[in-house]
Amino acid sequence: MDSNSEQNLLPVKGIQLASACAEIYKTRRNDVTLIRMAEGTTVSALFTQNVFAAAPVIVAKQHLESGVSPKYLLINAGNANAGLGKVGEHYARETCKNVSGLADCEPEAVLPFSTGVIGEEFPVEKLNNIIPTLIDNLNTDGWLDSARAIMTTDTVVKAISEQVVIGEKKITITGIAKGSGMIRPDMATMLAFIGTDVAIDTNILQQLHEVTVDTTFNRISVDGDTSTNDASVLMATGQAGNKEINSIDSTDYQVLREGLHKIYLYLAKSIVKDGEGATKFIEVNVKGGKTPQECLQVAYAISNSPLVKTAFFASDPNWGRILAAIGNSGLKDLDINQVRIIIDDVCIVENGARFDGYTEDQGKTAMSRPEICLVVELGRGENQESVWTCDLSHEYVRINAEYRT
Amino acid sequence: MDSNSEQNLLPVKGIQLASACAEIYKTRRNDVTLIRMAEGTTVSALFTQNVFAAAPVIVAKQHLESGVSPKYLLINAGNANAGLGKVGEHYARETCKNVSGLADCEPEAVLPFSTGVIGEEFPVEKLNNIIPTLIDNLNTDGWLDSARAIMTTDTVVKAISEQVVIGEKKITITGIAKGSGMIRPDMATMLAFIGTDVAIDTNILQQLHEVTVDTTFNRISVDGDTSTNDASVLMATGQAGNKEINSIDSTDYQVLREGLHKIYLYLAKSIVKDGEGATKFIEVNVKGGKTPQECLQVAYAISNSPLVKTAFFASDPNWGRILAAIGNSGLKDLDINQVRIIIDDVCIVENGARFDGYTEDQGKTAMSRPEICLVVELGRGENQESVWTCDLSHEYVRINAEYRT
Repeated sequence: MDSNSEQNLLPVKGIQLASACAEIYKTRRNDVTLIRMAEGTTVSALFTQNVFAAAPVIVAKQHLESGVSPKYLLINAGNANAGLGKVGEHYARETCKNVSGLADCEPEAVLPFSTGVIGEEFPVEKLNNIIPTLIDNLNTDGWLDSARAIMTTDTVVKAISEQVVIGEKKITITGIAKGSGMIRPDMATMLAFIGTDVAIDTNILQQLHEVTVDTTFNRISVDGDTSTNDASVLMATGQAGNKEINSIDSTDYQVLREGLHKIYLYLAKSIVKDGEGATKFIEVNVKGGKTPQECLQVAYAISNSPLVKTAFFASDPNWGRILAAIGNSGLKDLDINQVRIIIDDVCIVENGARFDGYTEDQGKTAMSRPEICLVVELGRGENQESVWTCDLSHEYVRINAEYRT
Repeated sequence: MDSNSEQNLLPVKGIQLASACAEIYKTRRNDVTLIRMAEGTTVSALFTQNVFAAAPVIVAKQHLESGVSPKYLLINAGNANAGLGKVGEHYARETCKNVSGLADCEPEAVLPFSTGVIGEEFPVEKLNNIIPTLIDNLNTDGWLDSARAIMTTDTVVKAISEQVVIGEKKITITGIAKGSGMIRPDMATMLAFIGTDVAIDTNILQQLHEVTVDTTFNRISVDGDTSTNDASVLMATGQAGNKEINSIDSTDYQVLREGLHKIYLYLAKSIVKDGEGATKFIEVNVKGGKTPQECLQVAYAISNSPLVKTAFFASDPNWGRILAAIGNSGLKDLDINQVRIIIDDVCIVENGARFDGYTEDQGKTAMSRPEICLVVELGRGENQESVWTCDLSHEYVRINAEYRT
């Protein structure tokens, strides 16, 4: 299994991309992207759970439900096309029609995506005007440019390629993502587009996409907020020539699943590492729960606690805040006297109290590292789950106070 | 009904207080308080819902359950006596025994309270050594000194008196509180001690206390975290000479309830206004809900959103974040197209989209005020509820990053 960073993205047979500058984003740079999928591509798309879904999310869902096979993805950064009421949906449909008119397909074959500020007038003309340029420039090497063009408050490009072998055929997977704030389970303010040339049955692809997102994008938390525009799209062009995967019990499925999981986990972690103002990356691993669900409940309570997050920012081993967050997680029958807390290799809390041999210096050293693993043992079962998060810094407040200025 | 600020606190017949410096708090100032209640006082105490309850909370609950009437409250600031395991409970019991030995009562007549850092060795000797001084200095005018002595990260004293007339008798109510961070429903890291000379049946007092806390202390949110040490204590000495209140249907009960509500609401709002790093006080009033519960659910989703709170800090009318928070509140069947948002006198959102006559300048002006009322109309029912919160500033991060240094 070869792994490639964003410097070495691999084209995916059957997928073309183009980016351009429509002057929608507040600074001048490429801010729109068009992705073209070859005939026969299988697509799965997952969207935000926020009941306040943005216009492009509503329209994309309708287009998917129409039964027409998706052929194009149209993405803009800088304006979320959200909070504009029915006119926002009209704009989204209009841009899809424009693409379809020039590309000779049905409007429902185009899925729209937007990310950026909510509630500002959507510059539909600018987007419409750039579509011919995008169509002219479609090419198989556009992944890196596209990864840049979908960014908003992101400070680094998030992109990766991976290859796996299935039935003697080399399968390529390339993925790009954006997102750095408003992040929480349910894929808050993030967009991800992952392409592969594998041949796979539609239902199996959908299942695979769901299970993969559930253990990667749905396990990250920056600030506990979720957004109106999130989407993850998985495209399988089928051009690698492998025998179509049509069972989740096959070895081929397992190999593909592992490859995809690696891509998704890399992108998910990249989003947390680039969390607004983040200075530290923290894995919260909760063990010894009665169910996976309660492990996650405790992990999220810790990950979403502003007091825990500021303590991590300050490299302050204030484990009382971690215990308090565990106590607030909603497990009413939890016996706090069974709880252990370990930061990297340092045991800090045992039986719900400060560990005997623990010194404050050990804790500070562990919490000063840029990547930290926080293990919480509940001591009441056999399950474990992880969530990835970051610290809460001055910079988070600055970025979000000044976002629109 | 006369109202008195902290500058003019009224003594309560039957309640004596004393404060002193035991050098438990990090800077030198009074940090311990003893409160003595006269024979025949009726007491109600409500505690944190955090399953990780601190040692003094555990001991105070046991003492209350023993059936012995409470006579003394012993309070220290600077150390929470939490996260120390069984030894913490031992310390708390020891201090109660010390008070009871000198004051000639049963140890169970003493209730311990602590607030401060979690997980640090509890300075039980310092506390024990100061008890004789406290007992010697008990006096009826100690309310203001006590309000100061229980503070931790608080920047202002929180105290108020109120008088109501019940059956031609003048009833005095005086209350003090502390708390400025880790605040959320369930009375997170706050202590409140309210005394009154009213005569009232024990069960009625308990009921009255619960309903009052539920609509005041349980409606404030600073950072969504809750603590291990919260407690609210209501003491009624019965020395005002009124006919004992023993029904919730009486006029006397209503008059007392209004007086108490005023005291509790004042203290609750004072805590939010003094929220760590807070520059703005925000009432979130959610109307038009099917049930009071769903109004609260939406109000808390808004109040606990870091993105909404940083927007308030920046006076940025980024109403998209408010809509997104509403969409995340968990009301799966909410129609966002029915939602209206009004900030003070400015309608910002109607039918889930920017209000037609709204200008950004209007929004900025409204959000620049130090006290803001945010009204959200859900348009699906007849209920309404309010929650009080504050903004999220650079200062919040600084205070909580440096808390222990």
